[in-house]
This record gives sequence, structure tokens and C-alpha cells, in this order.
Amino acid sequence: MELKDYQRYSEITRGQRKAELVLKNAEIVNVFTGEILAGDVAIEDGIIVGTGSYEGKTERDMTGKYICPGFIDSHLHLESTLVTPGELVTVASRHGTTTFIVDPHESANVSGLAGIDYIVNQTEDVSANVFVMMPSCVPATSIDDNGCTLTAEDMAPYLKNKRILGLGEVMDYISVVNGEAGMHQKLTLFENRVRDGHAPFLAERDLQAYVMAGIKTDHECSEFEYAMRERRNGMTILIREGSAARNVDAIVSGLVENHMTGEGFCFCTDDKHIEDIEREGHIDHNVRRAIELGMNPVDAIKMATIHSAQCYGFDNLGAIAPGYQADLIILNDLEKVSIDEVYYKGKVVQKDGKIEIRSCPEELKNTVHVGGFSEADLKLESPDGFFTVIEMQDGQITTKKQIKKLAEGKCSFVSDEQLQKIAVIERHKATGKTGVGIVSGFGIRGGAIASSVSHDSHNIIVIGDNDKDMWLAVQELIRVQGGYTIVSDHRVFDTLELPVMGLMSDAGYQYSNRKLKTMIDKAHEMGVGRGVDPFITLSFMALPVIPEIRITPRGIYDVLSGEFSRN
Amino acid sequence: MELKDYQRYSEITRGQRKAELVLKNAEIVNVFTGEILAGDVAIEDGIIVGTGSYEGKTERDMTGKYICPGFIDSHLHLESTLVTPGELVTVASRHGTTTFIVDPHESANVSGLAGIDYIVNQTEDVSANVFVMMPSCVPATSIDDNGCTLTAEDMAPYLKNKRILGLGEVMDYISVVNGEAGMHQKLTLFENRVRDGHAPFLAERDLQAYVMAGIKTDHECSEFEYAMRERRNGMTILIREGSAARNVDAIVSGLVENHMTGEGFCFCTDDKHIEDIEREGHIDHNVRRAIELGMNPVDAIKMATIHSAQCYGFDNLGAIAPGYQADLIILNDLEKVSIDEVYYKGKVVQKDGKIEIRSCPEELKNTVHVGGFSEADLKLESPDGFFTVIEMQDGQITTKKQIKKLAEGKCSFVSDEQLQKIAVIERHKATGKTGVGIVSGFGIRGGAIASSVSHDSHNIIVIGDNDKDMWLAVQELIRVQGGYTIVSDHRVFDTLELPVMGLMSDAGYQYSNRKLKTMIDKAHEMGVGRGVDPFITLSFMALPVIPEIRITPRGIYDVLSGEFSRN
Repeated sequence: MELKDYQRYSEITRGQRKAELVLKNAEIVNVFTGEILAGDVAIEDGIIVGTGSYEGKTERDMTGKYICPGFIDSHLHLESTLVTPGELVTVASRHGTTTFIVDPHESANVSGLAGIDYIVNQTEDVSANVFVMMPSCVPATSIDDNGCTLTAEDMAPYLKNKRILGLGEVMDYISVVNGEAGMHQKLTLFENRVRDGHAPFLAERDLQAYVMAGIKTDHECSEFEYAMRERRNGMTILIREGSAARNVDAIVSGLVENHMTGEGFCFCTDDKHIEDIEREGHIDHNVRRAIELGMNPVDAIKMATIHSAQCYGFDNLGAIAPGYQADLIILNDLEKVSIDEVYYKGKVVQKDGKIEIRSCPEELKNTVHVGGFSEADLKLESPDGFFTVIEMQDGQITTKKQIKKLAEGKCSFVSDEQLQKIAVIERHKATGKTGVGIVSGFGIRGGAIASSVSHDSHNIIVIGDNDKDMWLAVQELIRVQGGYTIVSDHRVFDTLELPVMGLMSDAGYQYSNRKLKTMIDKAHEMGVGRGVDPFITLSFMALPVIPEIRITPRGIYDVLSGEFSRN
Repeated sequence: MELKDYQRYSEITRGQRKAELVLKNAEIVNVFTGEILAGDVAIEDGIIVGTGSYEGKTERDMTGKYICPGFIDSHLHLESTLVTPGELVTVASRHGTTTFIVDPHESANVSGLAGIDYIVNQTEDVSANVFVMMPSCVPATSIDDNGCTLTAEDMAPYLKNKRILGLGEVMDYISVVNGEAGMHQKLTLFENRVRDGHAPFLAERDLQAYVMAGIKTDHECSEFEYAMRERRNGMTILIREGSAARNVDAIVSGLVENHMTGEGFCFCTDDKHIEDIEREGHIDHNVRRAIELGMNPVDAIKMATIHSAQCYGFDNLGAIAPGYQADLIILNDLEKVSIDEVYYKGKVVQKDGKIEIRSCPEELKNTVHVGGFSEADLKLESPDGFFTVIEMQDGQITTKKQIKKLAEGKCSFVSDEQLQKIAVIERHKATGKTGVGIVSGFGIRGGAIASSVSHDSHNIIVIGDNDKDMWLAVQELIRVQGGYTIVSDHRVFDTLELPVMGLMSDAGYQYSNRKLKTMIDKAHEMGVGRGVDPFITLSFMALPVIPEIRITPRGIYDVLSGEFSRN
């Protein structure tokens, strides 16, 4: 704050001068004391300069309404929402999220630093605060095939950028606890900043060694007791409610049952599609659900505001107090979190209107390079008739490992009602690598479904009940340079093009949503469970850091043993 | 942490290697969850490397005992405890305080940067963590006469020192809210660090303007409702329990009555004499008293540990978790906070034994320079018979302003049972300035009591019931180059020499304590109230930033109006 500005603000604070804008007669949520206090909020230059009784050049009556701080999404990936970053942020900001802590690790896995620059540049002047965590695990593990490798040396110049906050989710816990030099160079580079974790169900001693390396947060808790284990070791828990992974019920219920206020807990979405945001909200949905589960409304709001601000070191965000940025939510009803208006830097966030889509460098729209893939590459045989099966878990991104024996004398796998084929085709460097396996719990019949969004390396992943349709689906994604596609009865049913790094559409989110709805309906018709988003579920099946078993371009990988498994 | 060290620690954490030391079978206080969990604490190189079940090269059985993190004193002045910094820290560390956030503003007021260097150097290798806040108000206000002036430019080189944490208590709130350039240069210099406050009973709008300048803490709250006002504006409250100012009862009672857990509240001592530390403890006393007042023991411990660590940005202090420094307190009883042993960096703090007194640069032992002071300077006359009286408040450092009219026709003040004379004599630059006034509530009869410790400028302050003894007392302090003295019936009764900047004794704290006891007893015999420490009380009477009325070398100063008052 410039001294000249402070002098003017101070005069307003002390009643010697009118504020630009005063929100009058509100019920103001105080996240420091947990109180709700009647009063006015005085705003100048987008900054809160006083609360209490004020006069303004413009005054807006808020009688009967609540004002709470704008919400903070503590951890999300903008690219995995299919739309361009500016669109996602704009839509989510209409739902009250005014601060986004994004980890561009999808972009980085495809296009390296150019991918990170893309996210930083696209969110430069949106109607929200967007901070960036430097992706820590590109590639996610050394056994994966992605587009780029990011080292500490690559990251160092980014420290100067004020929007670069810290180190993004450290998924490769094995490298951390084993003291692998490259990983620790990154941890050391961000020594005085927040280093985000990613630590689903680590054994207690591994967890402690992981924490000792300086990792502060985790957003992968799906059970309350595990969250408590992490919390006991000093971690901050980012309770996630995204499109696929939904952890609010489990964690918040535990907090409520144990009479805990939520100290050390924040909210995040991780990966949430724009259609889900439009349907149920963004972080406001986490808050609303927490209140429904019995949490005190102000405690729930604290998890969406000040807890996150404190965790990430924002000293002017997440509260309504003098000197804080005027990022505010006007609520018609506190318990229902029914949002009337959102303010970002003291200005109303428009509820609708066209959202500008920024152009993208050409090289980021030509990233799908597959080497010599043929239908024959999808054959799956086992001399002894034994196969590994990737068993999907309802509503979770974790999987279980099963071993399946074909009928006596059979050695070639053929899909049926329960089991289908899954394949991952390397698509960055045309290496020709293709991994094939068996999956249960997906249920697709009469075709194939494929995606170039597949965490974290974003190779092409495909599930189908026949090789021809699977091959066709892959060809379609090569043709459009990335996207989602469904092939039914040997013909492409529909394709959502995602030309930006094979991850995002630049055709506008309404277009993507319309297509996506049609395609998801089709997938359900083809046998995918009604409650399941086929593309998001698919996108996690190649992520070799989540237990128990995954598919990669090099074959089936057992996460728990750290070894490749038999087909 | 070096990678090689991390690798070894991680092996211990994961049970592949024995720890140097394991504290076995303890009840471990977890400040993150509020739980008390049975288990072992594994320590290597002074760092906690695991909690749970561990084997060590050395094992110590802690059955039936509690382990909590070492306590943090969030704000104190080492120099105002009369003894050398190393002595104070060592004695307090025996009472469980393992981290000290010190503001050397007494030294700075006398000797400037040399005074700060003295505190930094003297605490370099003591058995505790000592961090330093850069004194912000030297002099406390422009109307005072001290030894040195510190500007932002003077402070800038100190930012590089890892033990310099932030900006010390900003007392001059008028300069802050008026946007005075010199003050704001200091605030800006420490923009990304903690800036401590000092804001007793500011009006609401002044308080908000003060907070808006970036000031984060206050340790001057003596009433719960005022603490809540500060807290609502986002400040962290440092609840003080020192030798003179005792605020734990008022603030903690409020927390307990309002079912608050103490979030946003920490503990400090501000100014506490070594004899009080030996008698009742240091921060452990704050914790003990808070529990007696009805606070949950773990919540009370959190105010002495993790809350302060979070406020000041220590990510490896204030908790028992992997990677945290092994600063621990072993308690025989949780509720009584009965301390069995203290560990600093994994080593037991010795309970007794001689404490080394480090030598001090010669120029810091020759700082009392008085210009032409005579007994006649103490005369107090008023043509109309009206005088201002400084009314002391029992147990508080605040004062009330009263106007007194002498009997008709009288214009020269003479002491009686209720009213005595108070004077401050400039002692840094031999300017010859002497301020004289009337004080009530002190009660001394038959002599005078004087001190070169008088916040914050540390001129010579003296109270007496006759001019001759007052003059004698001042002469005595000039002779010994600073100290405490009592004159009774025209003779020096006793003197505690404080040659280090006129603030500290280097003769050993036992010597100081013995002398001090004798002298305090004598003061009580001479009429000073039994519950009152005469020297500490005296030391605040010249501090022109605490309401309502003070004495300075330039005369009587009305803090509320910001103007000098009639004698």
C-alpha cells in the first residue's frame, strides 16, 4: 500500500472522508471471533477500510443480508475442467470463489514451462485472485511417459513471480522419504513457502517421514481417521469436493461427531467440471454441505476463508477487516449459503454475460504425437490364462488389484459384461509404447470411450469391449489433436475436441457442456453406471501414484509394490 | 535440513535405524488436534524424528509423565529484567520457556544499534531460541529525550540476520494513523514480516486505521472486551503476565466465560523480573493460571506454543511432530503444569549451576550523562495554586490525570501522606532538562527512590517526599552510572548498580536479587504499598505513550490530548 493511499484510507477509516462504497446495515461474518456483527463495510480502491458505521459516495442497503469473505479454493487444477482457465475461474467466481490456488501440473506434464506460462498468462486479469503452485512431479513418477520433465533448476526463475506461491502437490512420496536428490532439490527450493502434499493412506511412519521433509498440506484424505493421522503430524487438511472425488461428507461428519471446529482444515475442489459448478456450486457447495452435516455456519465459512489464507500466507485475504481486499459474498441466507452477489476487489462480479476466451500459442494446440499404433497392439494374451484386473471402486479414484484366470485352455482375453479392455497409448513423443489391461466396474458395451486427459501424463486412454472400436477411438483423438470421444458400433458417436494441450476446449464452455452431456448420456446407455462420470473416472486409471493398480504405456503397474504386473 | 541428514532421520522415522534418544511411554500433548496420545518421542540431532513406538540408543522412561512443546514468550524485553540477557534466558528456560521473542528497545533507546547488537550477541548461544524484533519507536515519541534515534535506513541491514524476525511494538499510534512518513518507512521495510503492536485502549476507528497499516499483534490488552475488539479486526492478542502488568486473569476469564478456545491468543511476559520468575515461573505461570481459571489444559498450552509459532512464522517450533525442534517440557502433572525437566534441542536444560556472564563493550557501561542538575531544579510552584497530579492505578501501568488546588494563597507544593514529588532528569546527552510533577498512589515517606530504568527513554526518574533526598538519589545514580537507589533520611540506604546501559547488572542475578529484596522491603517500610514493586512501577511513569498522564524531562505530558500539561 502506497503511503499516499494509506493516508486517504486512514482518513476514511477515521470518519474524516466518505468511502467510495459502503455496504450498509449488513450482518457481517467475523472469521476471527466467530461472531456475526451488525454494521456497515466501507470500501475504497477495492480494499476494506472500515467496519462499523460509515458513509459512502455510493451506499447499498444490505438489510437482512449477510456478508462473508470471498471463498478460497485451496487446491485445484484448472486444466482438468476442460475449459480455458479464464472461463473456469469466471464461472466459479460467480459462485463466490474469489481466490484460486492452482497447480498447473496437467499443462506442465504435456508442455512443460510453456504449459505453466499458459495458465499464468490466461489468469492474469480475471475477476479473482489466482495463485500458482509449481508442479512438483513432472512426470508423476519415473516409470511414466509424459511430455516434459521439470527440475528444480527449471523452476528457480519462477520464484520471483509474485503469483507463484509454493510447490505443488508432491505425489511421489517414495522419492521424498527415500531422500532422492532431485525431489529434495525442489523441496529445498521452496523451503520458505508452502509445499503441498498428496498422500493418500500412507503408512504412519512413511507419513511422518513425508511430513518431516516439510510438506504441509494434503487434499487426498477420504476418511476422517486418516485426516486425523495427518493432522496429528501437523498437516493442514484440504477437504476436497470435486466432480469425482467427494470427501466432505466423510471428513466433516467426523469433525462434527468429535465436536471439532475445523481448525487446520480447509476446502478445495481439486478437479471440478464446469457443469458441476453450474449445477451445485464450487467452494460454496463444500460450505453448504458442511452446514447440512451439522457444522456451525461460521466454522464452515472459516474453512473456506481464513484457514486457507493462514495456511498459504495471505495476510489480506479471507476476512472482513481493515486492510483486507474487498472480496466479499452477499448471502440471502447464511445456513443455505444462498449467494445474492459476489464482490471481487470491491466490484460486483457479473452473474452472466459472455466470457472472453483468450487465444493460445499455436504450439500448445499440436501436442498429440502417436507412433505406429495399430489394432493388433490391443491384443491381450497370457500363456497360463492368468490376468491382472484393475477393479474400479464406486465413487473413488482408488482401485483394487484382482487376479483373474480364464477358463481352462484359454489364453486370449475377450471382453464380457463384467470385464473390458483398457489401454494407454503414449502420445507426446511418438514412442509407440502401448499398455493394455483388463478393467472391471466400468461396464461399457458395444463400443469404446477414449480421452487424451489422463492424469498425470495425459497419454491417450481408452476402454472398450472390442479392439476395433478402441482403435477407432484413438484414431479420432489423433485426428482432433486431443479430446474425449465415444465410438459405438464401429462409428464415432461424438467427439469433444480439446485442442489446447489435449486438455482443454477453446470453443466455449457452453459448447463443451452440451457435447459432454450428450456423450455422458451415451456412455450411460452403453452400460457405464448412472452415477459415474465416464471421462473423469477414465482419466484417473493411468495415474501410477494412487493405489492399488494402474495402467501405463509400459503396462500394468502395481502402485503398492512399485512394480509392473503381469497383464 | 541437509539431504544427508534428512536421509538418516527418515531411516529412523521409518524404523530402519535407532534414534539417539527416545523418550518412552509418555503422554504426548498434540497441539494440532488437542489430544493427549500415549507414545514415544524419537529425537536425533535435536530434532523430533518420530512419535509412536521407537527404539533409541538412549531410552528414558516417561511413564506417568506428559510431554508438551517448549513454551514461547511472544514478547519480552530482556533488558528490563535488570540482569544480563543470557542470565534471564537461562533462568526462564529452566521454567520451560524455550523460545523468546525479544524487543531490545530499552537498549536501543540508550545506545542505538550498539544496544541491539549487544542483545543479539549476548543471546547467540544460550540454551533457547532467541529472536529479535527491531525496535520501532526509538524514541517512543518525538516529545521524549532518549539516547538515539533509529530510522528505517538504520534498520535495513538487519533484515539479513535470520534472528531478526520483524518490527517491534509500534507504540506511536498517532504517527501510524496520521500516515507519518518515517513511521511508514519502517512499516514498509518489514512488510512481509510480523509487525508487533502496542495499542492500549485505542478508539475503535483509530484501532482500525492502526490495523490497516499492517500491525498484527497487541500485548497491551488489560480487558477482555478490548481484546475482543482487537481480535475482531484480525489482531493476535499476546496475553501478558509480567512483574507489574498482569492481564491473564481478565483476558482468560473472558475466554472461559465465552466458551472460546484461545484461537488468536498467545502468551507473553513483556517485563518480568528474575525474582518473580524464580518465585512463580515464566510462561508456565501464564499457562498454570489459565488452567486455574478454567481453561482446558491443552488449549492453555496451545496459547503458549503453536499459536505463537503460527503468528511469528516458526514452522519447526511449538509442536511435537516430525521435523520440529526437540524443545520439550516434561510435566509430572498436566493441570498443575509441574515441570520435571526441560529439553532444548533434545538436551536437558540444567536446573542449576553457574550461569556465565558475558562481557560487555566498555562504551555500553558509560551512558549516564547529566548536565547541571541541582536541588533547586526540583522546586514545584504554581502561581494560581493549581497542579496536575499523576494518579497511579493499583496493579496497572495506566495512570489517571487529576487537578489539585493547594490551600488558598499557597503556590509552592510540599509533599504529604497522599502526594509526593516525581521528577525525570535527562541523562543521555547532558541537556540539563528536568521535568517535575506530583504523584499520588505511591506513598513513599522519609526519603526518595530513583532509577535509571524508566521506559522508554531511560532517563533518571525519582520520587520522594523531599527535594534533598531526591537530589541525593540522582547523584548516587550518576556516580554508579545507572541503577536503582533508595535514599532514607538524607543517606543512601542501598544501591543496585546497573552499569550496562544503566539498565542491567553484570554482577550476577543472585546478587541483584538479594539487593533488590532488601531494597523493596525498605521501600515498603517507607510507605510504598505492599503489593507494589516500587522500581517497576516507577519505571513506567515516564512512558509518554500510555494513558493518561506522564512525566518527561520536558514536563508533564497528557497522553490523551498529546500536549504538555501545567505542573
